[in-house]
Amino acid sequence: MSFEPAHPAQLLDADGPDTVRMSVAEARSLGEGALQRLGYPLDEARIIVDQLIDNALCGYKFAGLPRILAIAGDWKTANPRTSVRIVHETPVSALIDGGNNVGYIAAYRAAEVAIAKVRAMGIASVGAYNSYFSGRSAYFVERIVREGYFAFHAASGQPHVLPPGAAAPALGTNPIAFGFPSAAGPVIIDLGTASLMWGEVMLHAHLGQSLPQGIGYDRHGRPTSDASEALLGGVAAFGGHKGYALSVAVQALGLLAGAALIRGQALDYGFLFIALDPAIMLPGGDFPRQMAELVRAVKALPRQPGVDQIRIPSERAFRERERRRVEGIVLERKVVASIQAL
Amino acid sequence: MSFEPAHPAQLLDADGPDTVRMSVAEARSLGEGALQRLGYPLDEARIIVDQLIDNALCGYKFAGLPRILAIAGDWKTANPRTSVRIVHETPVSALIDGGNNVGYIAAYRAAEVAIAKVRAMGIASVGAYNSYFSGRSAYFVERIVREGYFAFHAASGQPHVLPPGAAAPALGTNPIAFGFPSAAGPVIIDLGTASLMWGEVMLHAHLGQSLPQGIGYDRHGRPTSDASEALLGGVAAFGGHKGYALSVAVQALGLLAGAALIRGQALDYGFLFIALDPAIMLPGGDFPRQMAELVRAVKALPRQPGVDQIRIPSERAFRERERRRVEGIVLERKVVASIQAL
Repeated sequence: MSFEPAHPAQLLDADGPDTVRMSVAEARSLGEGALQRLGYPLDEARIIVDQLIDNALCGYKFAGLPRILAIAGDWKTANPRTSVRIVHETPVSALIDGGNNVGYIAAYRAAEVAIAKVRAMGIASVGAYNSYFSGRSAYFVERIVREGYFAFHAASGQPHVLPPGAAAPALGTNPIAFGFPSAAGPVIIDLGTASLMWGEVMLHAHLGQSLPQGIGYDRHGRPTSDASEALLGGVAAFGGHKGYALSVAVQALGLLAGAALIRGQALDYGFLFIALDPAIMLPGGDFPRQMAELVRAVKALPRQPGVDQIRIPSERAFRERERRRVEGIVLERKVVASIQAL
Repeated sequence: MSFEPAHPAQLLDADGPDTVRMSVAEARSLGEGALQRLGYPLDEARIIVDQLIDNALCGYKFAGLPRILAIAGDWKTANPRTSVRIVHETPVSALIDGGNNVGYIAAYRAAEVAIAKVRAMGIASVGAYNSYFSGRSAYFVERIVREGYFAFHAASGQPHVLPPGAAAPALGTNPIAFGFPSAAGPVIIDLGTASLMWGEVMLHAHLGQSLPQGIGYDRHGRPTSDASEALLGGVAAFGGHKGYALSVAVQALGLLAGAALIRGQALDYGFLFIALDPAIMLPGGDFPRQMAELVRAVKALPRQPGVDQIRIPSERAFRERERRRVEGIVLERKVVASIQAL
């Protein structure tokens, strides 16, 4: 069983002749300017860039400002956008038409609606569709958790993942995320159900690196370790049949969020949030203290030889975020120039 | 990457000199009689046995009637039981004291409360604690789905699973389950977050079989493939860091269900249900049709050479259930005699 590092991209933080180190304020200004030139109003540019910078701070380098180039290059960005709007609503739920806005906007608005509804009712389910580029689930989930609530989030996407035995993809990379308020700081669990994030497949192809064995399939469904071939085919789910089953669950949760309403296809983008106030379950506000105790109990376990600490999901990313807030973000000069040229 | 068969136990269905084949009615009568002799009233014996028989019909042979022997042998069964009761409640939620009843009863009652609440409010969260033996998640989830609702279920347990880098277990085998109504029949996703079900570890130990490499740890946290040693230590989560992260999420969801309320420990049994009426998300009752379309699209994919069909989670178990309803259930004579002797 191979344990993949949680954030491989964070190893690529070194300065060099081809890199620029920027403060958060400088990176913000660069990103917001570029998105405004792409036609985004300032308030939306701010919402998007705050996420890209958070991704970079947490060590997801290629989910940072370079995404602006991907947004600029996507054909959907050239299509007309309308405001994100609620199309169906109950006191405990909302269905949101994303108006062909990127997920950074559509899912952000959905999380905002979920927060307002959970505050009023103790629990809420909110879905968003007619969107693309789902953004980083942990960001949205943390936003809800910072208000004191439990958050569940599933984001279905377009076909990149092959079911076991299939020779073509049907499922998105379909991340699933859970967030818990804790007296010792939020605990966020965010995992793609694909064996590799799609951005990592693209990165492998870009760098000419081979994929790990048994993961990639070419356009004919034949096994391949060539990342460029896999871009035209797809990858397996993580963890065998169990990961596949989770991926199917996320695709179905996407349907609850309206994924099939825009193009009539079951295999499309849908962002579902379920938010819950722990106080409706445990009276007395006990949950955050119990959650901190769970974290303490796990971290206090005896360790394998050579292991310096037991890690809790999101712990390392949040620690790195604090460090990079001070040290700044490293970007490739080429990327900065391309963003400036937009 | 190894694809584990979804239901290894279903391969053990052959008749032999040491086995008895029973009709469902005969098995029901055997189980209900034994549980009544253990002190369960008939209505509760029926609730438990219906689950054990469903497990057996679906191919989870060792989660069938043999569990009655495990219930009889557990020290908690000798402790006093009180009625399952709601201790905290809102229109959209309930917290349930399981009264030291087995999960087959406590989680069943919790699912019943979830159904009543989702019917009234469109969404509901229900947790149960002070229980043991969680039962099969898919059974409870299917019950909610048969009423037309989406169901999410997480069941935390006592320490059997080691976090990466740890030398002692902290997490339960922590199953997570999702159920979706569909025009073509329910789709149920039910996966343990441990690399092996605990019952399978016990079975390996009983049969003197080795565990797969890299899964087992002995009481000192040293890697072992000896199942008897692993019974005193634990196993890894499935799928590396991602499976570990899911296991942490389930343990935290158990806290929302009251897991820490009975013994003051964060690492204990808690059963959480979230039920949702798809109609609060998608107006017009469209969800079951869209779900059937998702299943159709996945099953219609081109296949790898030699693969006869793409399987959807729960499809095989439900097909086997229909077959065994007709053909009967195979039990070991020894097990039947032990149950009769209770």
